[in-house]
Amino acid sequence: MKVAGEHRRTIVASADGSSVEIIDQRRLPHAVVLVRLSTAADAARAIREMWVRGAPLIGATAAYGFCFAMRDDPSDGGIERARRELLATRPTASNLRWALDEMRIAVAALAPARRFEAAAARAAAICDEDARINQAIGRHGLSLLSEISGRKPAGESLQVLTHCNAGWLATVDWGTALAPVYMAHDAGLPVHVWVDETRPRVQGALTAWELGQHGVPHTVIVDNAGGHLMQHGKVDICLFGADRVTANGDVCNKIGTYLKALAAHDNDVPVYAAVPHPTIDWSMTDGLAEIPIEERDHEEVRMVGGAPLFPAQSPVANHAFDVTPARLVTGIITERGVCRASREGLLDLYSERRRA
Amino acid sequence: MKVAGEHRRTIVASADGSSVEIIDQRRLPHAVVLVRLSTAADAARAIREMWVRGAPLIGATAAYGFCFAMRDDPSDGGIERARRELLATRPTASNLRWALDEMRIAVAALAPARRFEAAAARAAAICDEDARINQAIGRHGLSLLSEISGRKPAGESLQVLTHCNAGWLATVDWGTALAPVYMAHDAGLPVHVWVDETRPRVQGALTAWELGQHGVPHTVIVDNAGGHLMQHGKVDICLFGADRVTANGDVCNKIGTYLKALAAHDNDVPVYAAVPHPTIDWSMTDGLAEIPIEERDHEEVRMVGGAPLFPAQSPVANHAFDVTPARLVTGIITERGVCRASREGLLDLYSERRRA
Repeated sequence: MKVAGEHRRTIVASADGSSVEIIDQRRLPHAVVLVRLSTAADAARAIREMWVRGAPLIGATAAYGFCFAMRDDPSDGGIERARRELLATRPTASNLRWALDEMRIAVAALAPARRFEAAAARAAAICDEDARINQAIGRHGLSLLSEISGRKPAGESLQVLTHCNAGWLATVDWGTALAPVYMAHDAGLPVHVWVDETRPRVQGALTAWELGQHGVPHTVIVDNAGGHLMQHGKVDICLFGADRVTANGDVCNKIGTYLKALAAHDNDVPVYAAVPHPTIDWSMTDGLAEIPIEERDHEEVRMVGGAPLFPAQSPVANHAFDVTPARLVTGIITERGVCRASREGLLDLYSERRRA
Repeated sequence: MKVAGEHRRTIVASADGSSVEIIDQRRLPHAVVLVRLSTAADAARAIREMWVRGAPLIGATAAYGFCFAMRDDPSDGGIERARRELLATRPTASNLRWALDEMRIAVAALAPARRFEAAAARAAAICDEDARINQAIGRHGLSLLSEISGRKPAGESLQVLTHCNAGWLATVDWGTALAPVYMAHDAGLPVHVWVDETRPRVQGALTAWELGQHGVPHTVIVDNAGGHLMQHGKVDICLFGADRVTANGDVCNKIGTYLKALAAHDNDVPVYAAVPHPTIDWSMTDGLAEIPIEERDHEEVRMVGGAPLFPAQSPVANHAFDVTPARLVTGIITERGVCRASREGLLDLYSERRRA
């Protein structure tokens, strides 16, 4: 998508795949700072410390981290070390494990001397595939948005509520939840986005920034406000990304998503999660019981802009994600189409999994 | 309640009622700064700019503002001007109008020369009554907490979740939602409070501070986290204050309360609002349709600690309250006891209203 009018991706590899340039997302929306990563340790740190974030971009960055490791130590031990180091960065996003599995498969059968080149090719393909997938999500989501918009009085903007950042910054390009929004806007469908602040890390600032760069009308609200807006008919659809979707359609996403889904359910507002296939974890069928929920540094809650918000003596808890049960999710948008948030719904789109 | 081990109230009048000393709550939890108010304009500014906040303390401060006006202009015109100026400060809290009505009744039939003295007496009585009422709320709430605690395994702390600040800082003394918590703690009942941050104004910092001053175990969480905690059985009761409760039991409280009540309902966690009688608005029976919801300055959302969180070009919305429908509220705790959140429940406690 566009930064100051010029197209760019969130992760751009050098020609030989020996380094990537990323945007340090901790500095947004105040500054666009580009950083070069060239070792597996660089990539692990960028993921762990959230220079990059968003399940698809975590996967893409990990893929390149693995690739760099194959340049530095292409042995079987090197494969396992790189995988272990990168997998340990963040526990919740399904795409991380998926990308590392893909990378291992791409190199494991090759002689060590050929592993780096193969890894660079696979990492580049993962990035290209992510951009393509998200475009497809955008097209399927656009049909949905057009349909909902068509039920509104002519000229009224479609009101979308989103939580966290599931835009192009969370992916290689286009975004997941925001891909349909960009396509709607580009197609001339009037659309306005309510942007949840998303404490503690305030990823709403990323969403506001990228919507602003693309010219999409939006309004920032605190995480507390969505219920009130829905009670008063000001939201037509909730569109979220996800870090992991279980085989039965439970949606794990940034902490607070569950609360918005409850409010949507209470006010007959449809809830959709937009996810690429690597976000679906076919091995799990009970999100609440099975998905590991990351607990992050307490300082993320306590400090804002370098200043403490709370008494130093007051303990803090910081769970980064929650699980929205499938019963509260109207549907899942993937690169293959839109389905119900259920085992049957997902299997209708991914019928090859029926045989798995 | 206690500050650094010494008891104090949030509002302390001079002997002749010609000024009051308040805590500038904008400076908490970092500093305890006392400020003297001595005119109606002072009081109006302190309420409007939230040097004081919380429905009961807004009422008490407005009462003294009215009193100061009776010293400066005790004419009939002075009564109306003071009432109008103070009523315009904040639209949502029921206690504000109640206190101003009480003050007008106390002086209207008197000769102008006697109005200031009568106003000072009534304002002092309103403050004393608030402290007494909240003690009674504490006692009734304590019975409820003891009962819920009794169903837990021995030795396990009762887990309370609260939103915003409904502690002694929101009242003259004791607090509303926190009065039962203080009494439980003092009675040796093990209790732990999950403190919602409460963006945008972060009144959770006030709650954390006053719980800390009293030694009550607590943990600060972002507003997004309560649902996750309830899904995992970590909350036994949600205890809120309120800015207005309608005659049918709808609860208007700080924005985000509705979302927590939805999560409580979804996870069989009881929800109680603790309110003194001036918070009940017997004239309204549909909170969503009738209660005016204050919209505050966008900078409250945009700026934290003097630094902008969001792009300057991104619009912001800032609704300060929401309404939790009575169907999501297990009960109301008042100075007269605990009742269902319904017209019949409230009338059982306030039977004189059956004749009204």
